[in-house]
Amino acid sequence: MAVKWIYDFSSNDADSIAQGNAFPHLLLGHKGANLAELTSLGLPVPNGFTISTLACNAFYENEKSLNDALRNEILASLKNLEAQTGRNFNSIDKPLFISVRSGAATAMTGLVGSVLNLGMNDKTVEAFANETGDKRFALDSYRRFIQMYGAIILDVDHSDFEDVLDAIKSNKDYTSDTQLNAADWQQVIEKYKALIVEETDEAFPQDTMTQLLGAIEAIYLSWNSVRAKMYRTINNTNETYGAAISVQTMVFGNKDNASAVGTAFTRHPLSGENKLHGEFLENSQGDDASAGIRTSHAISVKGLDEARAKTSYETQMPQAFAQLKNAAIVLEKHFKDLQKIEFVVEAGSFWILQTSSAKRSTSAALKIAVDMVEEGKISKEEAVASIDASSLVELLHPTIAKGVERDILTTGLAASPGAATGKVVFSSRDAEALKAAGEHVILVRTETSPEDIHGMKVAQGVLTQRGGMTSHAAVIARGMGIPCVSGANEMRINLENEELRVAGRTIKKGEVITLDGSLGQVLVGGVEMDHRKLSGAFGVLMSWADDIRRMEVRSNAEMPKDAQLAYSFGAQGIGLCRTEHMFFEGERIVAVREMILATDEEGRRKALAKLLPMQRKDFVELFDIMAGRPVNIRLLDPPLHEFLPNNEVDMDRVATAMGISLAQLKRRAEDLKEVNPMLGLRGCRLAISYPEIAEMQARAIFEAASEVANNSGNLGDIEIMVPLISLRAEYEYVHNIITKIADEVMAETGTVVKYKMGTMIELPRAALRAAELALSADFFSFGTNDLTQTTFGISRDDAPQFLQKYQMKNIIERDPFSQIDEKGVGDLMKIAMERGRQAKPELKFGACGEHAGDPKSIEFFESIGMDYISCSPYRVPIARLAAAQATLKFAK
Amino acid sequence: MAVKWIYDFSSNDADSIAQGNAFPHLLLGHKGANLAELTSLGLPVPNGFTISTLACNAFYENEKSLNDALRNEILASLKNLEAQTGRNFNSIDKPLFISVRSGAATAMTGLVGSVLNLGMNDKTVEAFANETGDKRFALDSYRRFIQMYGAIILDVDHSDFEDVLDAIKSNKDYTSDTQLNAADWQQVIEKYKALIVEETDEAFPQDTMTQLLGAIEAIYLSWNSVRAKMYRTINNTNETYGAAISVQTMVFGNKDNASAVGTAFTRHPLSGENKLHGEFLENSQGDDASAGIRTSHAISVKGLDEARAKTSYETQMPQAFAQLKNAAIVLEKHFKDLQKIEFVVEAGSFWILQTSSAKRSTSAALKIAVDMVEEGKISKEEAVASIDASSLVELLHPTIAKGVERDILTTGLAASPGAATGKVVFSSRDAEALKAAGEHVILVRTETSPEDIHGMKVAQGVLTQRGGMTSHAAVIARGMGIPCVSGANEMRINLENEELRVAGRTIKKGEVITLDGSLGQVLVGGVEMDHRKLSGAFGVLMSWADDIRRMEVRSNAEMPKDAQLAYSFGAQGIGLCRTEHMFFEGERIVAVREMILATDEEGRRKALAKLLPMQRKDFVELFDIMAGRPVNIRLLDPPLHEFLPNNEVDMDRVATAMGISLAQLKRRAEDLKEVNPMLGLRGCRLAISYPEIAEMQARAIFEAASEVANNSGNLGDIEIMVPLISLRAEYEYVHNIITKIADEVMAETGTVVKYKMGTMIELPRAALRAAELALSADFFSFGTNDLTQTTFGISRDDAPQFLQKYQMKNIIERDPFSQIDEKGVGDLMKIAMERGRQAKPELKFGACGEHAGDPKSIEFFESIGMDYISCSPYRVPIARLAAAQATLKFAK
Repeated sequence: MAVKWIYDFSSNDADSIAQGNAFPHLLLGHKGANLAELTSLGLPVPNGFTISTLACNAFYENEKSLNDALRNEILASLKNLEAQTGRNFNSIDKPLFISVRSGAATAMTGLVGSVLNLGMNDKTVEAFANETGDKRFALDSYRRFIQMYGAIILDVDHSDFEDVLDAIKSNKDYTSDTQLNAADWQQVIEKYKALIVEETDEAFPQDTMTQLLGAIEAIYLSWNSVRAKMYRTINNTNETYGAAISVQTMVFGNKDNASAVGTAFTRHPLSGENKLHGEFLENSQGDDASAGIRTSHAISVKGLDEARAKTSYETQMPQAFAQLKNAAIVLEKHFKDLQKIEFVVEAGSFWILQTSSAKRSTSAALKIAVDMVEEGKISKEEAVASIDASSLVELLHPTIAKGVERDILTTGLAASPGAATGKVVFSSRDAEALKAAGEHVILVRTETSPEDIHGMKVAQGVLTQRGGMTSHAAVIARGMGIPCVSGANEMRINLENEELRVAGRTIKKGEVITLDGSLGQVLVGGVEMDHRKLSGAFGVLMSWADDIRRMEVRSNAEMPKDAQLAYSFGAQGIGLCRTEHMFFEGERIVAVREMILATDEEGRRKALAKLLPMQRKDFVELFDIMAGRPVNIRLLDPPLHEFLPNNEVDMDRVATAMGISLAQLKRRAEDLKEVNPMLGLRGCRLAISYPEIAEMQARAIFEAASEVANNSGNLGDIEIMVPLISLRAEYEYVHNIITKIADEVMAETGTVVKYKMGTMIELPRAALRAAELALSADFFSFGTNDLTQTTFGISRDDAPQFLQKYQMKNIIERDPFSQIDEKGVGDLMKIAMERGRQAKPELKFGACGEHAGDPKSIEFFESIGMDYISCSPYRVPIARLAAAQATLKFAK
Repeated sequence: MAVKWIYDFSSNDADSIAQGNAFPHLLLGHKGANLAELTSLGLPVPNGFTISTLACNAFYENEKSLNDALRNEILASLKNLEAQTGRNFNSIDKPLFISVRSGAATAMTGLVGSVLNLGMNDKTVEAFANETGDKRFALDSYRRFIQMYGAIILDVDHSDFEDVLDAIKSNKDYTSDTQLNAADWQQVIEKYKALIVEETDEAFPQDTMTQLLGAIEAIYLSWNSVRAKMYRTINNTNETYGAAISVQTMVFGNKDNASAVGTAFTRHPLSGENKLHGEFLENSQGDDASAGIRTSHAISVKGLDEARAKTSYETQMPQAFAQLKNAAIVLEKHFKDLQKIEFVVEAGSFWILQTSSAKRSTSAALKIAVDMVEEGKISKEEAVASIDASSLVELLHPTIAKGVERDILTTGLAASPGAATGKVVFSSRDAEALKAAGEHVILVRTETSPEDIHGMKVAQGVLTQRGGMTSHAAVIARGMGIPCVSGANEMRINLENEELRVAGRTIKKGEVITLDGSLGQVLVGGVEMDHRKLSGAFGVLMSWADDIRRMEVRSNAEMPKDAQLAYSFGAQGIGLCRTEHMFFEGERIVAVREMILATDEEGRRKALAKLLPMQRKDFVELFDIMAGRPVNIRLLDPPLHEFLPNNEVDMDRVATAMGISLAQLKRRAEDLKEVNPMLGLRGCRLAISYPEIAEMQARAIFEAASEVANNSGNLGDIEIMVPLISLRAEYEYVHNIITKIADEVMAETGTVVKYKMGTMIELPRAALRAAELALSADFFSFGTNDLTQTTFGISRDDAPQFLQKYQMKNIIERDPFSQIDEKGVGDLMKIAMERGRQAKPELKFGACGEHAGDPKSIEFFESIGMDYISCSPYRVPIARLAAAQATLKFAK
């Protein structure tokens, strides 16, 4: 069977294309597929046909020339079009004019764009003038064609055409194109032709078939233009499908004053309001409106003042408006979504050129989805599925107002979303001091360490020179819900002079900058902000999502502020309370350091005794805030060196508290230093090396639980989690400590506290040995950050320097710390779940890494049957929605 | 069916026990099982029976008392023994005396030992005196019994008995026990009895059944003594089997001058010579010989001078000697091994009390195995299986002479075997200087870095304060074959004063110490050494092993000296050439640093151009040494910071070479620092970030290969290995670089060089994604060190501080960096092999981590079908033997 190169969307082909083909866009490009779909819906679309993407491949296979079969099919399709329209291509008897548009399977840049009015030449334009009785219109259309064809197909500089036109206008003292009469346009045409001869050494083609084939070849060649290839590389769309071309009968928006070109949205794309929105420009063609020569007018009268209502499309062209309104209803019903409609009115007749799902603000998306459910157009499930979960972040954090001019100082990684303005400080001490003086501050550091927690807590945002998406700064900032730009590599900080330098500019301490954590930008000065609005639709949609969702959504939180936020964002409990974060508060860091630096158990116990009441108070507060919802507490986890003092002042304080010399303390601190702290003395290794730490933590937990149970009576499930397990014996050892202390405390208080114990699965060995770990654990919590680190053998802190190069070289698609690596890390998780579940069917599985707030990762977690996910408070709504969407996806 | 508590090894039970039970030692203890086996062989064993280990459990279940059934069975067994011997327990008519010995399934300490002469009391001893006509002998036997029973069963201090005897001897002016006559012994007996009453408040039991049951209970109670439990804990023998007890008719080596006690080896346990070896003492009992009261004599006359031949067992007791000789033949034939025989001669009659496989020196083991094959006693396979592969290390490295007194300064980890003496130095510079002056030096460092390579190369041994079994110092030392003690935690080095301090002692630079790298000891001063001897038997046995072995054995080597050693030790090729080790030689480190610290590609290329000719020369040399055997080269792997200069002098040299300021260089070095270098910019990440490095290395390899192919024509297979792969795209990227350069060089030289490319599997993700990696790789080489690090999430460098605690707390049995963790890391290896082989059945698998030199790990590698292993040169013979043993094991 011969290949079919061309599909006629005006005939029966339309239905078969729209309905019979699962992926019509691969064959016809998204434009061609859309035209077929619109025709199939019975909407008014100018007749035409689409040359499939396969023909583009054939062009390249045929040494960059059109093969005979294709040429013949083009001829036949034109004949067909002539028959459909009763007009004739390359004829002075009712001449046929066409538009030629490129398209591809996915929207892309770099392809040659649209050519309108093709088929015009010296003779057909005269015939057209006679036919329409409007010589000026005909000549204007012709000069537009020459200009477009010259610039786009023949590659003559666009501005050269503008210069010709400007010269004539200035010569005649015209200020607007509308002032040019037929004779003027004739003059323009002659000068355009001369320009083309000059630039291309060839005359503008008068043969219409030459025009058409020339346009087609130019489009095909543009498929491999540098710009197009660059686009495909950057967007990783290694398409094997080429460019499609749609050829369509021209309709003229510039025919007369009953003609127009317009763009309409079926609902307002920013507010979501249910009214036709957009603009139109009468007697115009193509991009005239956006060229700004004349002012365009509104579509619908709704909400307009009298003057603007009068010029609106609804008022000016009521019949065509009615057709648009009808089309909007048909389109929304069909596509179940907000549509953008590009249309032309030719002498009162309404034509659609193209429609597409329209971009919209997140709040509009929510409102539209909820409205459409109430209108019965879509189901609740469809509404929930329609929202981009990640986009909710816009609502949760303040953002820089749209359209504001940005003086970009430098860029880094978009490490924590939202925007913030403040005065630059280079230390936590300065941050606190300035904050105390009522200022907003942005903390700027080479990289942050736990030392900087104080500074981060009072800062509006954080900027670091080093560190990736999961660096200390990034993780903590996301947890706190403050914006962060990390890894701004080009910046250099000079602490002596208290200034930062980048791109030849210097910002001193106290100068104002703005961070856009959603884009990774650092701006000079302050800018206008949009503040978050959680509209009614947000709540409605989230409640539907909660009804649909299978996985439980919890939050990672330990500080009261975070726990409250998590609660208010609908977290069903705490999935990860990182007890170490509680250790940096106020005076307790000194006691923590005492504990770490003690050389014997006695010294450690002395320091732990100071920490016990503080830790107990923390837990009481946490349990109270969560008011009956479960709280999962992880025992002390981080490498101890994170707590080590790293300056003389802090060292001195600790030495004094411990009653030892500064020199002794320094030696001890030196001894504790590790080559690879991420793989060193941390996690359960701490509890095993120094059981007294785990004992103190267990005592604090159970004493707090008793207190809350006895006071409010509203105590949720207590879960205790042992980190960094690789051996069952490790887990058993810590399990025994906890059980012993639990029994002791319950005997002392007389209050029975129910609790569960489980293990983090964050090392490959734990995943592999899941069957034996399952035997004595109630739950597994996947620490996907650490699991990613060890599975890949990549340190989060050190990764940015080479992962960036990896992405540039297409070796890795995305940062595995942002989106779970399904094939590697995910495979290990599946192994752990299979083995764990086989050993103990009732075992509960959770994920509490950064990935638990990422929609794609959440989809994966759903696919493997995770029971719960736990993310930072600000990502809880995103996780709730993404989890619901994942449920819907796999329910199919 | 009632439980059978007791097995009579003198009756038919013997055969059924010896032949019908797969694990008789679990039921009867190793002593009881041995007695049954000897009886079954027809050897002269005094009659008796064994109370099984189950009875001990029953004792504990019965509230620590003997149950009636057992008591009855003991009575019945005694009756049976009386019938067999014609003697009577607790009777003055031919009184029966017995020995009672404890035993367990595996040899252990902490159990109550042997009690001889049980059944003696005031009356039976008199009857015995009458029967033998030797009152002195009877009374001596009785006092021995009271002493043994008193000390062992009744827990009276042993020295109290010695004091009693000494007092009497001194009173009588006796110097030897032989001087005591019957009356004297009677006096001793009375004093002993009085001592027991004094210490225990009870009289010495005259009832022989009370004696026996008391002994049994004491043995049972000793099963749970602190010492026994400690032993089982330390040796991880958590036996559920209790103590077994063997009861046997006494034979008296102290009856007369035709009686004796002796120990004989069927061959010489140190030299392996095929002659009866050992010692005997006439007219003695128990441990008299080792008590040193009289001098014992040799067994066989062979090789003795006339005087010593005259006192030998062979000369003195020719008939009994013939019986021993016969027994030796029977025993060797049966056990197919060198046996140690404990025997008694009673009035000319030869009796065997116990035999066991004897400990021997490694060279003896080799000679005996080879001799026994030649004698037709065992097969070659049995000979190969009989040698402890690890013990070969004794032959390969010098060791401290046996019996030398050791002044132990401190201990650390036995990181690299062998012993070495030298003067202490604290820097590579001093090491080189002293070495140049003709001195032997021991390099002492807090921990070593690649900076120290120079020092290690000239040192006799290395001592470090920090670092584990696979720390830099340990790995390099093993590779170099020099002894190393690492992680000597208690030692402190004071570089300013050039001294080390430990345990209150100070060793200054230039003082002599000795390292025992096989035991992890540091000794003060020099000691006598044994030097390695590779006897003829070694070569013969290794050739048998090579015939049997399935896996190929290669060596990790890159320096000429190491490659030569590997070749001479029988390595079948280089399995891992770590190119980075070549980068520390002489002047090239400066160029390497230039390359690392360059800020752009141009700078790197400039430095690489200097390195190319050096690296090419290295490879030419390596290929020449390996003379046609395959060489597997790994591209640059380590974290770059390992190469960074860390002192001003070195920094200045590099800055000068690069033409930049010291400050600039320092800033750049600071930028390159990583938080977790083991998980940072290393392995293939280097080749991808800086492709020019891989290009230079590939060029050096192929140019060298061309040169060798054209010169000697003796070029082995070239294999190129890409380290630290986690993504297929990484491998493909580097693969393309290598292929491109290979094509270039072959076009330039006109010489075709055959090569293979493969990937290291040393990250969990690589193991999981083996199927896709296999598609473009010729081989997988498991880097088990790194795979262990990432699977466990443990840094080799930082592990010692908590792994030591883990071992103390029984959380982990052994260092997973020494012996492969079969259940975790091994499981991942199995997954990788299954998936890899499924994708590409002809894929070749190798292991090149430290584990490839460990016999237990080699056994595992054989079990999963590894194709080759590659270890450090000094472990090649061990690996060859262990691989053969593994082949035999799994061929069964």
